[in-house]
Amino acid sequence: MPPMDESNLSAAYGRVRAFTEQLCEPLEIEDYMLQTAVEASPPKWHLAHVSWFFETFLLKPFLAGYQEFHPHFDHLFNSYYEQTEAGFWPRPQRGLLSRPTVAEVYAYRRHVDDAMARLLGECPAEHQATVQTRLEIGLNHEQQHQELLITDIKYNLAYNPLRPAYRADLAVAPAQDPVPLTFTTFEGGVHSFGAPEPTRHEHGDQDQSAARGFAYDNEFPRHQRLLEPFRLADRLVTNAEYQAFIDDGGYRHPGLWLSDGWARINSEGWQAPLYWEKLDGVWHETTLGGRRPLNPAEPVCHLSYFEAEAYARWAGRRLPTEFEWEHAAAGRPVDGHFVDDGRLHPTPAGAGSLQQLFGDCWEWTASAYLPYPRYRAVEGALGEYNGKFMSGQMVLRGGSCATSRNHARATYRNFFYPHERWQFNGIRLAEDLA
Amino acid sequence: MPPMDESNLSAAYGRVRAFTEQLCEPLEIEDYMLQTAVEASPPKWHLAHVSWFFETFLLKPFLAGYQEFHPHFDHLFNSYYEQTEAGFWPRPQRGLLSRPTVAEVYAYRRHVDDAMARLLGECPAEHQATVQTRLEIGLNHEQQHQELLITDIKYNLAYNPLRPAYRADLAVAPAQDPVPLTFTTFEGGVHSFGAPEPTRHEHGDQDQSAARGFAYDNEFPRHQRLLEPFRLADRLVTNAEYQAFIDDGGYRHPGLWLSDGWARINSEGWQAPLYWEKLDGVWHETTLGGRRPLNPAEPVCHLSYFEAEAYARWAGRRLPTEFEWEHAAAGRPVDGHFVDDGRLHPTPAGAGSLQQLFGDCWEWTASAYLPYPRYRAVEGALGEYNGKFMSGQMVLRGGSCATSRNHARATYRNFFYPHERWQFNGIRLAEDLA
Amino acid sequence: MPPMDESNLSAAYGRVRAFTEQLCEPLEIEDYMLQTAVEASPPKWHLAHVSWFFETFLLKPFLAGYQEFHPHFDHLFNSYYEQTEAGFWPRPQRGLLSRPTVAEVYAYRRHVDDAMARLLGECPAEHQATVQTRLEIGLNHEQQHQELLITDIKYNLAYNPLRPAYRADLAVAPAQDPVPLTFTTFEGGVHSFGAPEPTRHEHGDQDQSAARGFAYDNEFPRHQRLLEPFRLADRLVTNAEYQAFIDDGGYRHPGLWLSDGWARINSEGWQAPLYWEKLDGVWHETTLGGRRPLNPAEPVCHLSYFEAEAYARWAGRRLPTEFEWEHAAAGRPVDGHFVDDGRLHPTPAGAGSLQQLFGDCWEWTASAYLPYPRYRAVEGALGEYNGKFMSGQMVLRGGSCATSRNHARATYRNFFYPHERWQFNGIRLAEDLA
Amino acid sequence: MPPMDESNLSAAYGRVRAFTEQLCEPLEIEDYMLQTAVEASPPKWHLAHVSWFFETFLLKPFLAGYQEFHPHFDHLFNSYYEQTEAGFWPRPQRGLLSRPTVAEVYAYRRHVDDAMARLLGECPAEHQATVQTRLEIGLNHEQQHQELLITDIKYNLAYNPLRPAYRADLAVAPAQDPVPLTFTTFEGGVHSFGAPEPTRHEHGDQDQSAARGFAYDNEFPRHQRLLEPFRLADRLVTNAEYQAFIDDGGYRHPGLWLSDGWARINSEGWQAPLYWEKLDGVWHETTLGGRRPLNPAEPVCHLSYFEAEAYARWAGRRLPTEFEWEHAAAGRPVDGHFVDDGRLHPTPAGAGSLQQLFGDCWEWTASAYLPYPRYRAVEGALGEYNGKFMSGQMVLRGGSCATSRNHARATYRNFFYPHERWQFNGIRLAEDLA
Repeated sequence: MPPMDESNLSAAYGRVRAFTEQLCEPLEIEDYMLQTAVEASPPKWHLAHVSWFFETFLLKPFLAGYQEFHPHFDHLFNSYYEQTEAGFWPRPQRGLLSRPTVAEVYAYRRHVDDAMARLLGECPAEHQATVQTRLEIGLNHEQQHQELLITDIKYNLAYNPLRPAYRADLAVAPAQDPVPLTFTTFEGGVHSFGAPEPTRHEHGDQDQSAARGFAYDNEFPRHQRLLEPFRLADRLVTNAEYQAFIDDGGYRHPGLWLSDGWARINSEGWQAPLYWEKLDGVWHETTLGGRRPLNPAEPVCHLSYFEAEAYARWAGRRLPTEFEWEHAAAGRPVDGHFVDDGRLHPTPAGAGSLQQLFGDCWEWTASAYLPYPRYRAVEGALGEYNGKFMSGQMVLRGGSCATSRNHARATYRNFFYPHERWQFNGIRLAEDLA
Repeated sequence: MPPMDESNLSAAYGRVRAFTEQLCEPLEIEDYMLQTAVEASPPKWHLAHVSWFFETFLLKPFLAGYQEFHPHFDHLFNSYYEQTEAGFWPRPQRGLLSRPTVAEVYAYRRHVDDAMARLLGECPAEHQATVQTRLEIGLNHEQQHQELLITDIKYNLAYNPLRPAYRADLAVAPAQDPVPLTFTTFEGGVHSFGAPEPTRHEHGDQDQSAARGFAYDNEFPRHQRLLEPFRLADRLVTNAEYQAFIDDGGYRHPGLWLSDGWARINSEGWQAPLYWEKLDGVWHETTLGGRRPLNPAEPVCHLSYFEAEAYARWAGRRLPTEFEWEHAAAGRPVDGHFVDDGRLHPTPAGAGSLQQLFGDCWEWTASAYLPYPRYRAVEGALGEYNGKFMSGQMVLRGGSCATSRNHARATYRNFFYPHERWQFNGIRLAEDLA
Repeated sequence: MPPMDESNLSAAYGRVRAFTEQLCEPLEIEDYMLQTAVEASPPKWHLAHVSWFFETFLLKPFLAGYQEFHPHFDHLFNSYYEQTEAGFWPRPQRGLLSRPTVAEVYAYRRHVDDAMARLLGECPAEHQATVQTRLEIGLNHEQQHQELLITDIKYNLAYNPLRPAYRADLAVAPAQDPVPLTFTTFEGGVHSFGAPEPTRHEHGDQDQSAARGFAYDNEFPRHQRLLEPFRLADRLVTNAEYQAFIDDGGYRHPGLWLSDGWARINSEGWQAPLYWEKLDGVWHETTLGGRRPLNPAEPVCHLSYFEAEAYARWAGRRLPTEFEWEHAAAGRPVDGHFVDDGRLHPTPAGAGSLQQLFGDCWEWTASAYLPYPRYRAVEGALGEYNGKFMSGQMVLRGGSCATSRNHARATYRNFFYPHERWQFNGIRLAEDLA
Repeated sequence: MPPMDESNLSAAYGRVRAFTEQLCEPLEIEDYMLQTAVEASPPKWHLAHVSWFFETFLLKPFLAGYQEFHPHFDHLFNSYYEQTEAGFWPRPQRGLLSRPTVAEVYAYRRHVDDAMARLLGECPAEHQATVQTRLEIGLNHEQQHQELLITDIKYNLAYNPLRPAYRADLAVAPAQDPVPLTFTTFEGGVHSFGAPEPTRHEHGDQDQSAARGFAYDNEFPRHQRLLEPFRLADRLVTNAEYQAFIDDGGYRHPGLWLSDGWARINSEGWQAPLYWEKLDGVWHETTLGGRRPLNPAEPVCHLSYFEAEAYARWAGRRLPTEFEWEHAAAGRPVDGHFVDDGRLHPTPAGAGSLQQLFGDCWEWTASAYLPYPRYRAVEGALGEYNGKFMSGQMVLRGGSCATSRNHARATYRNFFYPHERWQFNGIRLAEDLA
């Protein structure tokens, strides 16, 4: 999200909050409560949690006389902040609460929105910088939950044997052949990575480049790394290519897999990406628009890291590191298919160099999610936002068809456990130079 | 349920179906989907399942030209009938389906009700006897699910830390002291047990005694047993008495417990009946009307067999066998506090012999749920109704405050696993004659 | 075990203790430590536990100046007595202790034997009755563990893919056809059941009938029951008959199974009795003498209650109640194939009425393991011996090829959970009279 | 292990194989079979598995006429090689096999040793290079299992409430105060990492430096990285320092922990390092020599990565990356306390720069275990040795008191899951330059 000055803060707040609710419009009341896997939280919970975030980190500390909406909501809608007082309701049981109702949760949102309007209108000067910083975090946070809303709704509805569509009217790309797979070469050398440190007085200056816009603490500090020469695929791996991997027995050859991956595909019985089903011999895919035959040219998505990594080995290539990816993406425009386009599904690549870097699918990298040199988390509970997850997860880059365009950037680090598949995760291949 | 002739079948059908929906009136849409434990099915599921029962066992076989409401509902709303074709959606995941919506489930009910009206109006003579028998089963089946609806709603709402009430306006008995505990003596000897075999031509005769009304197959055949002399308590064990057991360290002395019971209370951390909480040193109980301080005179309920059995040992008595109970209850009027009274909670006993035999709380007996001599289950899927559960469960007798009055009878055998507590299960003591 | 006077107590003690060690002679040191299932304790543990029993219930309370062998053994070798002080090492982890070594456990046995000799030689008059009673319990207890030793060794060795034999030289019955299945008819009526109450002054009187010998508390008190007329099979179900059940799809038809049984065979993947394997199309059985082709005439064994009950249903019969069995067995000589014969496997039946009632295989009955009317457990920890297991288990009758002949009797009640298969459990059919 | 020419191969083989058996000398037969955690394999299994390695990768492919010792051993003693034919016995069940006996496993070792002597004596020229390479791997493999033998024996014996010592006569360092904590500074810059590529013709040249000796494939290829300036602690963190962390509530403050770490310490109930116990208010530690009070100057060990990382945060420092560690260690002599010293416990540091880099404790680094740029695993089953574990684990460096001195080197990469504590894992702190 680009930097904001005081004058556009309220507008940005309004836009982001409204988009969350717009995403929920196709839902039935019943859909708001669904949680079919630990990681797929109910829409109702997302709606409340993002409001709790503003209440906890902005309204309670900075709005004089703020009255909390409900004394139990601090407990019910905290996600994982251990350093706040009330503890939190267990994540696996978020779907087991019928109350507050959906209507009450929307009332909670209105209550928070009204108070936020007061805070932004009357914020004392000594708090303005902190309020602005936290507001930016809060809006980016809500954008992340918009993406989770979409992927969780997809997961929760697809679990139902009736395979209900979220929206039956989504645009669908015509079936086609993929463009050929080509690569772009990079020289290597010492380069800089991570977000540039914001200079305080520039903050809020609309003329700043996006590069000086908002970034999470895990993108700091900017630092140097040495890259070896490499080549990066010009588009994502397609459904057709992944199907060839399956047809070649990819899921049956242990030599292609990491040990933890082999264990996982066997314990889970995985034989294809999430949402793929073979009906009468034809592979189908359940999308947010319902179930339909695979489009060979669309990027394969909803893969675990294990599958992405095994596919790359089978294909004689490898996954890029997060630094190779960032080096390739640095300075390029943030173009691509995002949630703003309303398709909610990745789209076949066109011809050309480095297509689909942004949007369409998050791209698994070969990099573990670890702190950059000299990384420091923020003090207090907000410091739990990113830093405490720096073990056991892998970095993904680039954003997806469920990401907001103004939420994506070259330095953005997304992270998931290597077995997680319910995000729009795909594959971009890399290779070493001979 | 008393026997029905053709003329009152439709009326009975209408009454039972309407009462199910009446029980759901206080629910929010969100409440219909809740399942917080494997055994506590969502109200939406109950509403659909009882309709599936009529569709499967009456409409599909006997109504010419019947069109099923939805091709997947046979799978989604079968409970446990292994011998039907479509298999069944797993019980622990009944709460993980947002579709069909509540509105669609009510439409399903209307569809089935309309078809049932046609069936009852135009049933060919050769099917009339079977249709009537199955209709009686279907109505009794729906009454059982009415009781489960109540206990499941109670469980699912009480799970919520907000402790929402199902209905805030339920009548509450004033706190009072229990009537003293007295016993009634029985002589023993050879007696008959079980439901009398219906004579075909009497069926439907309104003047018949209730004893010749409907009974489940597990109440047959009527047979003889030898009882030793015994005494039976004149009322249920009260909250005050059970609290004395807790205060005496009842949950901490292994010598009071069956081995499986001791393991269970330790693995579950049970220190009191389900729904009891100590707040500021005072025991409270969550009821369908909300949380309130314990009434010492009310019967203790929501106990496992293990707790009932341990309490009896601590009290120097024992639980009655199901035959002792039936012998005491035989020939007595089916009086007591039932769901018809609308209190949805057990009520303090009055003075007198053998109070509370029917209604208030199901009474754990010392009898394992096993077939009577020469018991034969019905052929086919309907034979799975009772017979296949004859291992590992204990018999309860008498009905509860969530049972329909015309569903209770002296020969009725309810059964649950010894650890199950979410029904209105209480304790009546027995003892041997010196 | 028949009653004992003081003069033969020492001899009985010596015989029982020696037989335990004789059973271990074929073991390698490594075999003593094996525990491949929670219920299959290591031989080393059995050797120590039975000694702990004498130490705890006889030596510590009654032998002046007794020094315990090791301060931790009270904890390590208690089985499940919750009312003793030291608690007990968890049952599933009995195989995870390499120390004490086998040699140290044998030293423990010698220590206990020496002390027991002193106790029996110098027991003060006021304790003699108690000591004698407890000694009888202790010897019967050790006999029970001899049977468990055999079945646990069988289970633990058969788990090994090398299928090592316990003893390669065991006698094997020649393959043969079973004798035809016939039934013996009983009239029903009121009869007495359970062990006759011992009269104090008769105790130890060698001329008493076996009926007045030792019995466990769960066989008391003798009481009356009403039996309906029934017929009882003259022999156990054979391997050939059970194979026909398998061939007929017995394990695939849910209509044949109790609900818990169907769940169990599916969760465990059971397709045949324990120890059966099909090699090159031929059913084999792993015995204590190694793996060999099934003998069609041998009784089928190592079945769960669920399998026995399903087989009976498939065969158009039922299992007998424990009272039908006892009525048939009462007054008959305790003849049959016991551990004393050294075959350690059931043997084909000969022709004749009511063959194999005693020995060969424990016979699953249709009776839940519940207390007899007016049953009272002994006070204190010894009262945990039988009474606390009276829930969730089924009664078996008659003894097996791993039982000591003088341990079997018509009133003996063995009990296991309905899914347990590792004992020599078989099937005797019953049926109602038309 | 330094490079070997043909003349010293047999000697090295003999030395390594003999040392394995020497480590087992203090064991009772019973100890050989113990497996008290999935990762703590029984000594018997280690003894057989390392022999299976030679049999599978050397004898079967290269020794003409080799007769395998037992047809089932390929299945029983394969560890995790998915690409070999026979599959493998499940790791959690390695302790559930009493056969082959310990004596048979030693016979298996003799059989393999004899065949290896023949192979080394008569190896055809065309196989010599491969045989030498695989022999080096096999000996390094056996050295790794020697370390596991020690740590597994420690774990398995310490599990026993009797806390038996492995060897009662181990030398113990006197209790003392730690030397002060100082740091050594490094400049950063671009440096090379990983093992130098061996030049074929140099192989076996005794005059080569150790740096060109054996290395695992995961240490290749040598490549460059950019380091920022940093400081590295001159010794490991001590018991006294770690105790201060505990006393300061280190295990109770979520802000100090990674999210996965906080979840782990709570689910496992960890309050201190593995093997620490507080007796009468005094911290004790169970060592291979038995239980004794903590020595404040000894390095803290048996920590998870989570604990090491939390400690570093609490101490205001951080863990070093594996590259910082390697940069500091490169070119230094491999001095320290190794298994060769026979103490089997880490030893207090002396004063001086960069003490304890090698030996004493493996040092958790901040680096995930990932492939070096251009890493290629060997073809076939041997390629499973290291490469397939490159997800979810963290790198440890330096070796421990259970490592062979000639097995340690600056480029060696050990790896474990972040929750694993049963190795001798300790902490060396690092910090950024201001």
